[in-house]
Amino acid sequence: MPNSLPRPDAPLDGLAIEAMVEALARYSDEPDRLTRLYLSASHRAAIATVMDWMHAAGMSARLDAAGNVVGRYEGAAPDGPVLLIGSHIDTVRNAGKYDGNLGVITGIAAVADLARRGQRLPFAIEVIAFGDEEGVRFATTLTGSKAIAGTVDPACLDERDAIGVSRQEGLAALGCDPDALGSCARDPQKVLGYVEVHIEQGPVLEAKGLPVGVVTAINGCSRGEIVVKGFAGHAGTLPMDMRRDAATALAEMVLAIEARGRATPDLVATTGVLSVPGGAINVVAGEARATLDVRAPDDALRKQAVADIEAKVQEIAARRGVEATTAIRYDAPAAPCDPTFRAKLARAVSAEGVMPFELGSGAGHDAMAFRGLWPLAMLFVRCRGGVSHNPAEYASPDDMGLAARVLVRFLEALA
Amino acid sequence: MPNSLPRPDAPLDGLAIEAMVEALARYSDEPDRLTRLYLSASHRAAIATVMDWMHAAGMSARLDAAGNVVGRYEGAAPDGPVLLIGSHIDTVRNAGKYDGNLGVITGIAAVADLARRGQRLPFAIEVIAFGDEEGVRFATTLTGSKAIAGTVDPACLDERDAIGVSRQEGLAALGCDPDALGSCARDPQKVLGYVEVHIEQGPVLEAKGLPVGVVTAINGCSRGEIVVKGFAGHAGTLPMDMRRDAATALAEMVLAIEARGRATPDLVATTGVLSVPGGAINVVAGEARATLDVRAPDDALRKQAVADIEAKVQEIAARRGVEATTAIRYDAPAAPCDPTFRAKLARAVSAEGVMPFELGSGAGHDAMAFRGLWPLAMLFVRCRGGVSHNPAEYASPDDMGLAARVLVRFLEALA
Repeated sequence: MPNSLPRPDAPLDGLAIEAMVEALARYSDEPDRLTRLYLSASHRAAIATVMDWMHAAGMSARLDAAGNVVGRYEGAAPDGPVLLIGSHIDTVRNAGKYDGNLGVITGIAAVADLARRGQRLPFAIEVIAFGDEEGVRFATTLTGSKAIAGTVDPACLDERDAIGVSRQEGLAALGCDPDALGSCARDPQKVLGYVEVHIEQGPVLEAKGLPVGVVTAINGCSRGEIVVKGFAGHAGTLPMDMRRDAATALAEMVLAIEARGRATPDLVATTGVLSVPGGAINVVAGEARATLDVRAPDDALRKQAVADIEAKVQEIAARRGVEATTAIRYDAPAAPCDPTFRAKLARAVSAEGVMPFELGSGAGHDAMAFRGLWPLAMLFVRCRGGVSHNPAEYASPDDMGLAARVLVRFLEALA
Repeated sequence: MPNSLPRPDAPLDGLAIEAMVEALARYSDEPDRLTRLYLSASHRAAIATVMDWMHAAGMSARLDAAGNVVGRYEGAAPDGPVLLIGSHIDTVRNAGKYDGNLGVITGIAAVADLARRGQRLPFAIEVIAFGDEEGVRFATTLTGSKAIAGTVDPACLDERDAIGVSRQEGLAALGCDPDALGSCARDPQKVLGYVEVHIEQGPVLEAKGLPVGVVTAINGCSRGEIVVKGFAGHAGTLPMDMRRDAATALAEMVLAIEARGRATPDLVATTGVLSVPGGAINVVAGEARATLDVRAPDDALRKQAVADIEAKVQEIAARRGVEATTAIRYDAPAAPCDPTFRAKLARAVSAEGVMPFELGSGAGHDAMAFRGLWPLAMLFVRCRGGVSHNPAEYASPDDMGLAARVLVRFLEALA
């Protein structure tokens, strides 16, 4: 590997991990900010560096048909199961350096630590750098992890990006064989589980004063829209007591949704966009809309919250003489983390002298693709201000080094 | 005048007034709906018909420099004062037939009734058909009535419409002399007052079961915008208790504004447009905006309401840890109607066997241009469903005939 690149040979040192994060962040599709889209030139460059690092960490490395980099560290026995460690190396536009990349780097660093000590475990380890987690370039996303899960829809190959390049063409240009997508799939009988290190992308760990946290589940999510139809009228001539105002009815619903979100721990309910189609300053709103996003680590809790919100919306609409519909258009189940894996991660955290703390993952991750197939685990790393998808994203070397050491302890505990 | 046109010689009959409304509604700039913009071809055609009707009603008729049609019915003495009766014959796009036009037609009908009976009053009557009330074509509006008031700004002559035609060019094409705008102004010493018949454009009279109502004032109006700045965050990862959500803060303010509007009779407060600039379904809103429109017949009441709203907005913002500004960008004083004129109109209503009822005018009218210059009066006519600025606008022949008879009684009472 080039001398100028940091090496994963001092892996449990946070400063070495930071140097690798910085090195990978140089690969961007745009000159002055980090934008690394799936199958782009900068993705290709990042893949080459990741493969170099994998080799340096004692692994074999290959690019699979879906554009995943797969580094393999053999176990003690040739026919043992495999533990998957992964995250993604694609980014959003104008991204931070840590989102995804940190998980790949800590995975390589952990294996390098085992390799340096000549330690083989009863299972092989594969570190996978997925390339399609952010969903910026094509309509569907998680195709790398779905290919590993065996659930990728080949129709995704025909999707085209904003300038007309298809996913099929992009994969072929990278040297992948799009027709062999099915070959990426793993036999769940042979997979011990999946573990991912990722920045929290939220403010909870920082507020708790904790460097890392163990994820309970990737939250399920219901998304949709509330549409209120009232009666448009003249803002000057329509007395208050004769109005059927869609905007004020919507405002009452928005507050009820916020209150419902607050009423259950770990549940969040968000109305991110409010609008009054065709509205004007001097017209009582005839129609008003709000988006709805409800997430919880437990699907039953989430569905109950959505049902409560729908009922409250109808109650408010009836009282105010307007009509309202709550249309849920997207419904993703939670991906719970494995209790045994969680316990082992918690013990690893504790062994590093840090109080184990569990939290849900409000954001989606590649791990979701493996829901129900094999055990999942995620370790969150504190990030400053909870900021992510932003150049200001930051995790400290101390916290990243700790996360790598926790990961090694977890691997050893699985053995 | 053409035989095909209805004639104002049976003026106090509602069906004759309806026939005139229908006849005028045929002049439109668009084939299948009523759109009659200021200084357009259809405005020119409507002017010609109005002048024909004025002549048939025993008046002289002329077009003044501002494009106002001025019909004059002389008084008993040549040097007496003049009472102005007016409304407008321009319309919004896809308009109703009654808005404005009804006031001009009832004015002509009332004079025709006096003329038929050979009755001269101690004052002259001028019926004025204004042409620029709706403000659709140019940036400023009410230039016709402002010219009569002597307050029109000559700079308005340089304003251009959407296709680049200036007001000056439009006036010249109509045969008006734009340089003589100043000549339209009346000496307030010689004006007895101004009275306007207009559809209510609101639902109050219909709800009360009354055909007409006496206007107390054209309401004053404050308009502006509330801007809330919170902190944008991930809808999945930001716990409810750590949010500074601009959208939910705005929703609470919208409800407080509605409550303030309801708290004072005759006051209305409207948030017609809600928006979340840059918002997304999966982002806790960092910024949210609402327009504000507050109207009341009494300026002190309106200013107190705006001050109360500003205080409430700050209280909510402080409690929720967001920043908020309330910017009032437009502030028009109320134009109160003259108590003596109101009393005479009420007695005229009563004499027709109808319960006198007073209400504010939430919409603006040409009468506003005469605020403080001479006494004002307005008579509202019930319109179905309160609908206006819409082809479904409707006033019944019975109600329109009654309004014309009330107007004649009012003229006689002034004598």
